[in-house]
Amino acid sequence: MEMDYKAVIDTQQLSAIRNESLIHYDKERKEFEKIIYDSIEHGPFLDVDSTTQKRLTNEIVKKVMAMGRFRVQLLREDPKKLLSYLHALFPSLDLSPIAKIVIHLQLFGGTILEIGTEQHHKRYFDDINNYKIVGGFAMTEMGHGSNVRQIETTATYDHSTKEFIINSPSLTSTKFWIGNMSMFGTHVVLFCRLIYKGEDKGVHVIVTPIRDPETLTVYNGISIGDCGHKVGWNGVDNAWIRFSNYRVPRENLLNRYATITEDGEYISKLSSPSKLFQITISELVFGRMLYVCGPIQYLGIALKASIRYAFSRRQFGEKGKTEELIMNYPTHYRILLPMLAQNTAFEFARNWVIDNIQESSKSEEKREEFHAIVSGIKAMVTEFAIVALSRLRVMCGGNGMSSHNLLGYMRNELDVFQTAEGDGAVLYQQLSKYLMVEYKRWYKKEGMTGYIKKEVQSFLVTSNPIYTHYRSMPYLLSNEFHQHAFSFRFEKTRSMVIEQLNQTKAKGLTFQQSWNASLILVAELAKAYTHLHTLECAHRAVRKCSDPITRHVLNDLIKLYALHNIEQDFGFFRNTNFLSSGKAVAISEAVTSLCQTLKPYALSIVESINDFEGRLDIPIGKSDLDYITHMARKVGIPLQKHA
Amino acid sequence: MEMDYKAVIDTQQLSAIRNESLIHYDKERKEFEKIIYDSIEHGPFLDVDSTTQKRLTNEIVKKVMAMGRFRVQLLREDPKKLLSYLHALFPSLDLSPIAKIVIHLQLFGGTILEIGTEQHHKRYFDDINNYKIVGGFAMTEMGHGSNVRQIETTATYDHSTKEFIINSPSLTSTKFWIGNMSMFGTHVVLFCRLIYKGEDKGVHVIVTPIRDPETLTVYNGISIGDCGHKVGWNGVDNAWIRFSNYRVPRENLLNRYATITEDGEYISKLSSPSKLFQITISELVFGRMLYVCGPIQYLGIALKASIRYAFSRRQFGEKGKTEELIMNYPTHYRILLPMLAQNTAFEFARNWVIDNIQESSKSEEKREEFHAIVSGIKAMVTEFAIVALSRLRVMCGGNGMSSHNLLGYMRNELDVFQTAEGDGAVLYQQLSKYLMVEYKRWYKKEGMTGYIKKEVQSFLVTSNPIYTHYRSMPYLLSNEFHQHAFSFRFEKTRSMVIEQLNQTKAKGLTFQQSWNASLILVAELAKAYTHLHTLECAHRAVRKCSDPITRHVLNDLIKLYALHNIEQDFGFFRNTNFLSSGKAVAISEAVTSLCQTLKPYALSIVESINDFEGRLDIPIGKSDLDYITHMARKVGIPLQKHA
Repeated sequence: MEMDYKAVIDTQQLSAIRNESLIHYDKERKEFEKIIYDSIEHGPFLDVDSTTQKRLTNEIVKKVMAMGRFRVQLLREDPKKLLSYLHALFPSLDLSPIAKIVIHLQLFGGTILEIGTEQHHKRYFDDINNYKIVGGFAMTEMGHGSNVRQIETTATYDHSTKEFIINSPSLTSTKFWIGNMSMFGTHVVLFCRLIYKGEDKGVHVIVTPIRDPETLTVYNGISIGDCGHKVGWNGVDNAWIRFSNYRVPRENLLNRYATITEDGEYISKLSSPSKLFQITISELVFGRMLYVCGPIQYLGIALKASIRYAFSRRQFGEKGKTEELIMNYPTHYRILLPMLAQNTAFEFARNWVIDNIQESSKSEEKREEFHAIVSGIKAMVTEFAIVALSRLRVMCGGNGMSSHNLLGYMRNELDVFQTAEGDGAVLYQQLSKYLMVEYKRWYKKEGMTGYIKKEVQSFLVTSNPIYTHYRSMPYLLSNEFHQHAFSFRFEKTRSMVIEQLNQTKAKGLTFQQSWNASLILVAELAKAYTHLHTLECAHRAVRKCSDPITRHVLNDLIKLYALHNIEQDFGFFRNTNFLSSGKAVAISEAVTSLCQTLKPYALSIVESINDFEGRLDIPIGKSDLDYITHMARKVGIPLQKHA
Repeated sequence: MEMDYKAVIDTQQLSAIRNESLIHYDKERKEFEKIIYDSIEHGPFLDVDSTTQKRLTNEIVKKVMAMGRFRVQLLREDPKKLLSYLHALFPSLDLSPIAKIVIHLQLFGGTILEIGTEQHHKRYFDDINNYKIVGGFAMTEMGHGSNVRQIETTATYDHSTKEFIINSPSLTSTKFWIGNMSMFGTHVVLFCRLIYKGEDKGVHVIVTPIRDPETLTVYNGISIGDCGHKVGWNGVDNAWIRFSNYRVPRENLLNRYATITEDGEYISKLSSPSKLFQITISELVFGRMLYVCGPIQYLGIALKASIRYAFSRRQFGEKGKTEELIMNYPTHYRILLPMLAQNTAFEFARNWVIDNIQESSKSEEKREEFHAIVSGIKAMVTEFAIVALSRLRVMCGGNGMSSHNLLGYMRNELDVFQTAEGDGAVLYQQLSKYLMVEYKRWYKKEGMTGYIKKEVQSFLVTSNPIYTHYRSMPYLLSNEFHQHAFSFRFEKTRSMVIEQLNQTKAKGLTFQQSWNASLILVAELAKAYTHLHTLECAHRAVRKCSDPITRHVLNDLIKLYALHNIEQDFGFFRNTNFLSSGKAVAISEAVTSLCQTLKPYALSIVESINDFEGRLDIPIGKSDLDYITHMARKVGIPLQKHA
């Protein structure tokens, strides 16, 4: 019977399309991966106290850095290569070593690269690449997370000694969550307000030594401690840091955009302090890209394991017959397959992100667009992955509760992705603001005629009763319909946001107040755009698939994503009269039917998800589907022949 | 400005209504709680390896049991008192000690109480109450979780020695997840197939010694090991157990319903082996009740902390002004308040459960009804709580990532609630099956006329255009409308299930097949009923509130639950033409408006959630709202005056 499920698709081609953006680095990544896993004792830390985990993690990072592949310069020269190297650390599913390297190399080193000048590069890059110094990124404070612009730490310039005097003026100004710094870090890039001749010049960045690199003794004037146990990432030593009249030389100011000359003159190349801040923050986009990659990769692995388990675990069934595979219950397949579909679609959006990161730095305009779109994707995938992982945990029952199967562990490791590098509520606003500004530009260019033309066209298309009610299966299943529904949702939500902003403005609210009052709709707009963008990326990927059966299956998977997404949002589509109730019901039926069509291919589809040459050790997720034996091995049940 | 939020409601009355079902035990519970926390070093285990945690947890349990309050007999004499005592262990938010006591006292002791006879009670109860023996509940096996009926462990009766010979005939028959047994347990109630004169008599329960109570040496013929690290409950020593020709005397069979006489004759008082199984399983209902209490209690605590945090944390705002409280953003209040509303409604459903547990054992009919309803509530609240806790974690940002604030910890501790004592997908089916059988009974009694009358009535009410479109605010806000919407959803879903079962049956499927094909709808039916039941419990509770402002606020909170629930289910209500699009939009507006109305009362409302005389130590959730100082204290930041 299981033979039915071995329907043949070209898993290699599917795998290549999934991982298209990094495919050229595959060989190099695999080599590096092999070196790491052959030489370093590694694996998820399930059952050690966090102090031990921090020490062990630091040892791993030291060894990996000593291999010489990770270099700050890669951030500019070849960010895809850097990303591929980071992927080589993935098979342990332990995110702490990756996090520590990213903090050190990209957040610390990358800030010096982008905001510093030649002298800083010369002074620090070799030591960073050799891990002689260990860097941190001291931005957030106890009272200031999302709103970094309000940080309180001060650096007052002392003309007499040509030094900055750094202070933490309040409890809320305590630097908090500073990764790498509670045990091992030697330097941070410190985000602080520059006080120059009594004037607040806004947020600047200063390379600030914290510990002696030889002895790891903390310098006088600094107090530091550990932030304590966390939901995940317990291998990362996060610190709180306070400064009291701590002195740092003038040269340590990262001065690409604003500097203090040897004569003590402050010169800024930028129009305003907030511009400097914007540029500084936009450098974080590489990190945000990692926050797109991580959840999708993790969830893919979890889906692979859970779907394999669903094809091996049996419960209940007809009397006197073998119990039924749990995959055959709609309560399983109608959840697992749409989840797989959505994650696959997100993979294509991720590939778009990876493919555009280098290009995006080429102009202000592109940088802005890229930053906005990545923000939306980051917010959406991080939220989706946590909800999905929680659900998979439950769908794997008792075996999901076992840490050996890593579902709870992965959820906890991934949880911080929703918060770090921007909370979803804030990121959705960033995308929506960008979309509204873009719309205003278009509106100005096209003028009222263009606007009316567009509105009328949209009105005609969606209010046409034939259009609303026409519901032949082929039409509902067509990519054209899905594209249209997603576009409609985006444009309609945009006009709803405009309407709501106008209404609240008419009541006398400030723009900020009326924007805040509309936040729910603003977030919906960002989500609608992100889904539209994702669908477009996915449709492009389908077209690249040359093997006919594989293309068909992938196309069905993307259709499932689209229709399930519409189903999830029936409230919107029905309330805006885009769908009749009959059409809505037909869509639900199409979702079920697509799930049933795809079920026999599910094992082959997940085969194409990278499991790092079998290095992942998840007992319920092995290719032989023999979860009983693998679990028995894990918990030490003797495997002699049982009667 | 914060003064606005101190709107006066009678928090004591609100607290009393919330906890009505156990209010008479409050004094005793508090006394016990004080004794426990004065004499036992306790608190959540955030950062120890699981072996250490198991040892420490066992010490706690020993000390608590030595206090003499926990007795098996309470299960019958006064289950509410037992439940109150269990609540006294809550302030640590560590569920392992509670779990260990429940496994020992209720699952082990309670099974002996209900399935055993006088001789067993005499032999074991004192030792159980004194914790001289430590019990476990050996039901689930590696291959058999939800479907216990298929367990494989055998007990073959040996007439010559008057003993059972116990064997684990296959790898899948290995007992798995057996709590209390990997390190400290001495006995289990063993669920196994009785083989009598070569015939399989079905599942029976035998008290089976595992370890010598003095030396804790495992007896020959038994192999045992630990199941390994888990997502939560790492203080519980869960074991796998295998038997090889292990002998247990005849007297150990729990023989209330089926026995083997001294002469070796097998006598069953029941019609069929499956009847015995049903009775055995229905004894688990006390445990299922705990699985209703736990998530609601936990989520209440998490909501209290998160809402207090939202009223203290500030981010962003108008230029030049103090930053805005995050509670004032719709992205916060329009999520937090509906969540609080739903959990409050669930509290009233829980009170119904607690109030009915003793009554329910009085007849087969009542037992069945109670069991079915509790199943639905258990499935719904466990799922809701995990999703909500995950969301709260994110809404508390970086402070949510800190284990000190316990949100991730609580999520992990609670996760197993979704799986143990019945997976949601299975429990929803149990309730729906009960509802369908009930309906069939009614249908038979009333006949076709009654059926048509009911259908026509429902049709007239819901298809009346005035009804569908009438949407004055007062009407949408009326309890009558909410009750009607919830009833409609339940009845409509039931008729949809019947229709789908008939359709699939017409295609030639067996009943089992067509039931399985309808599982999504079947689950929806159970959910619709559970929400209806919850709403009714909540409306009754509101009426008990004598203080007018408090009643008003509570009533609004329940309205918010109802309307938000309808909003979440717009797909259903719109597709069944219960709501016009205009009415749907008005409902969304009403939800927002209710949130804004309730916001000033939110702090007072959460004040009425039990925090165990301040024993809970959650830095972001303190009544003074000074999370910065409390977090600083937790992580060791010096608290001298800062400039």
